[in-house]
Amino acid sequence: MNPNIPKTDRKRVVIVGAGFGGLKLAKRLSRRKEFQVVLINRHNYHEFQPLYYQVATAGLEANSILFPLRAVFGNCKNVHIRVTVVTGVRPADKTVDTELGPITYDYLVIATGADTNFFNMKNIVEKALPMKSVSEAIALRNRLLQNFEDALSVETEEEKNGLMDFVVVGGGPTGVELCGTLAEMRKTVLPRDYPELNFKMMDIYLIESGGELLGPMSKQSQDHSLKYLQDLGVNVRLNTRVKDFDGETVYMVDGSTLRTNNLIWAAGVKANPLNGLPPEVIGRGGRITVNRYSQVTGFTDVFAIGDVALMTEEKWPNGHPQIAQPAIQQGKHLAKNLIHWIKGEQPEEFTYRDLGTMATIGRGLAVVDLPFLHFGGFFAWLTWLFVHLMNILGVKNRLFIFLNWMWNYLTYNNSLRLIIRQKLPEGNLNAMQEKLSDQLEVTKT
Amino acid sequence: MNPNIPKTDRKRVVIVGAGFGGLKLAKRLSRRKEFQVVLINRHNYHEFQPLYYQVATAGLEANSILFPLRAVFGNCKNVHIRVTVVTGVRPADKTVDTELGPITYDYLVIATGADTNFFNMKNIVEKALPMKSVSEAIALRNRLLQNFEDALSVETEEEKNGLMDFVVVGGGPTGVELCGTLAEMRKTVLPRDYPELNFKMMDIYLIESGGELLGPMSKQSQDHSLKYLQDLGVNVRLNTRVKDFDGETVYMVDGSTLRTNNLIWAAGVKANPLNGLPPEVIGRGGRITVNRYSQVTGFTDVFAIGDVALMTEEKWPNGHPQIAQPAIQQGKHLAKNLIHWIKGEQPEEFTYRDLGTMATIGRGLAVVDLPFLHFGGFFAWLTWLFVHLMNILGVKNRLFIFLNWMWNYLTYNNSLRLIIRQKLPEGNLNAMQEKLSDQLEVTKT
Repeated sequence: MNPNIPKTDRKRVVIVGAGFGGLKLAKRLSRRKEFQVVLINRHNYHEFQPLYYQVATAGLEANSILFPLRAVFGNCKNVHIRVTVVTGVRPADKTVDTELGPITYDYLVIATGADTNFFNMKNIVEKALPMKSVSEAIALRNRLLQNFEDALSVETEEEKNGLMDFVVVGGGPTGVELCGTLAEMRKTVLPRDYPELNFKMMDIYLIESGGELLGPMSKQSQDHSLKYLQDLGVNVRLNTRVKDFDGETVYMVDGSTLRTNNLIWAAGVKANPLNGLPPEVIGRGGRITVNRYSQVTGFTDVFAIGDVALMTEEKWPNGHPQIAQPAIQQGKHLAKNLIHWIKGEQPEEFTYRDLGTMATIGRGLAVVDLPFLHFGGFFAWLTWLFVHLMNILGVKNRLFIFLNWMWNYLTYNNSLRLIIRQKLPEGNLNAMQEKLSDQLEVTKT
Repeated sequence: MNPNIPKTDRKRVVIVGAGFGGLKLAKRLSRRKEFQVVLINRHNYHEFQPLYYQVATAGLEANSILFPLRAVFGNCKNVHIRVTVVTGVRPADKTVDTELGPITYDYLVIATGADTNFFNMKNIVEKALPMKSVSEAIALRNRLLQNFEDALSVETEEEKNGLMDFVVVGGGPTGVELCGTLAEMRKTVLPRDYPELNFKMMDIYLIESGGELLGPMSKQSQDHSLKYLQDLGVNVRLNTRVKDFDGETVYMVDGSTLRTNNLIWAAGVKANPLNGLPPEVIGRGGRITVNRYSQVTGFTDVFAIGDVALMTEEKWPNGHPQIAQPAIQQGKHLAKNLIHWIKGEQPEEFTYRDLGTMATIGRGLAVVDLPFLHFGGFFAWLTWLFVHLMNILGVKNRLFIFLNWMWNYLTYNNSLRLIIRQKLPEGNLNAMQEKLSDQLEVTKT
């Protein structure tokens, strides 16, 4: 194998990762004659991460939140997409190593994002359900639905309880949105699908180690979301830490336990830096320390943007929040600076513009914090829908998601209740075994 | 585990398989007070088989051709759906054995359909790509797209050719439709996605052992479809039989060979009868011989309908074609007869009403045989679209498929070009290993 990137006179920008930041940067550079862009991604699609939870709860199909990378850059001759995994970087040789072979760079941009942080708890790595990729979201959907099928056939009430109860760890947007949707399903579609089951048995717990939900949001939004969830019948436990899970029981640090087969882990993320960077550039949460030009500490030709980058500003002493906006803004900004550099102009320092944060809790319920206005309820929910819809890539995905949402809203029907198990193409068993052992390695690179 | 089907005074009808026949029958019995219906299916959804090829070629999302069974029978208290595999039948005990445990019946209906027939060729079982389930269609899509990704990185032209060429075996509707779509993609979306590849290198072969394509259709439709495919640049080889495939080369009985990594096998089907039936009831193609009341030879309480049943009429001495219509009509008819029997009335003999057959070849091209009219071209294509759309289960699926088709037609863009690999939930490695060995067993039950 050979990456086969043609040699040209242009400056080669190698971008690792096609999330919000990497993709935005690649798009901005794709029509510039000065650059040859090599975009490396593990999958052949961009994932719209904020909606994983809707895939997991049968509200959206996986396809609508994925967008094929090649469709973004159709006919762009200066963009070379390679679907592969980067195994490391050799800054001295200006080279990244990939599973296809080495690729040299003039500028390297690390935009590898973040993955679930299991805080080194081995049992949780093995037995909890994470939700940081679309395949994990599909696996969660399959598990959720299969549980109710199994609940029809188990012999004891205790087993039935274990299958029907859900414990979600982490009171951030993912945990809150997931619990809200599960609670909605418990009221509407599940009793209709399973008239043989008693849904009074289905308990939903949200466990948060801090003193409030939605940590970075306003006090008002935190209080609203707690109230909305409690009204929906979610058992919220604040100031509670999980310490272990054996597949049937969740053990809390305070000694209490919960019986469930389903522990969903949304308790935090950890950055995915690249192998081969000097250890002193790795900061808090595995993030790569960069200056205000996104340059990795000690380098002028290696950059990091988005969740994986740790850039501090006066207002953000611990780095920017690991959400879409900083990544998008850094991608745009770095594109401008690369053009400045190549023209011999002065680069500009990056400043994060906080556009606000929001979370949806259930049908017609959300909380929105804009810089000067906090609000909740139905109008916040419409705002949430609109903002997410506008940020989805591709007119078709936007249309289909909009129709799906309208459909689900009008019919109370998460219609994608499908347990789809993929058949493996031959030769894939080894790959699967590798993937399984990957899941067990807490530190991903 | 225990199937936990409640005991009632009603007559229990156990239906194995929720394809076109089994589902139709279950729906017709679902509102009748005389019956308790147990519907057993391997998956929790009904699959619309005629459109697998569009999933395989990124034109439709898998979700739109699947429909959750529980959504069909929401709130029907006399229907019990069990997602499990039937391992055999014990007619003497009026019992079917499932992976959940035994289930007794008053009436048993076998509607287990058919699967790919590899004609006992071991290498082909292992290395060819079948397309008789939605997971196989998704696997084919992943393979197709991954091939072009790989073609960017291989070292030799020969390897590149092997990845980019496709050989489809079987000139029935599946083979014809697949080749037509691949040829369309070669003209439109693939060169846009992969400007680095030369699509003059991509060859598409359709191999058929008989003397014509679309065997059971009219001479006129056969000739039209051959011409349409040839105009699209498909190499059609009639009267040619494949005898072996080593993963890189296809060997024909006539001694010729074709270099490809991709052999798609659509050469025939073989019925899936149940273990435990007396061997003398298994006829041609593994089908179960039944009388005109769908009763399995020698039984009054065991029935077979659809692809798995071999019912002969004067006009159909070798049984009905293994397509949707006979299954649907037999499902409806058996529902009527079961009601007759339970009321002590005379049952009626089944007579197949041939409504016609059709196949689509490409953008705006199809052939349609109605009982007294054969036509091809754009109007045939519209007819094909309309008939398939009307037969899709569920208003939402219908709407989404319609929009997808319009989108693809207007934009020349099969937009679902996603290589989605599922992450395995823990404990599934064993299940996967079993599945792999299942694939290697030619005779499925």
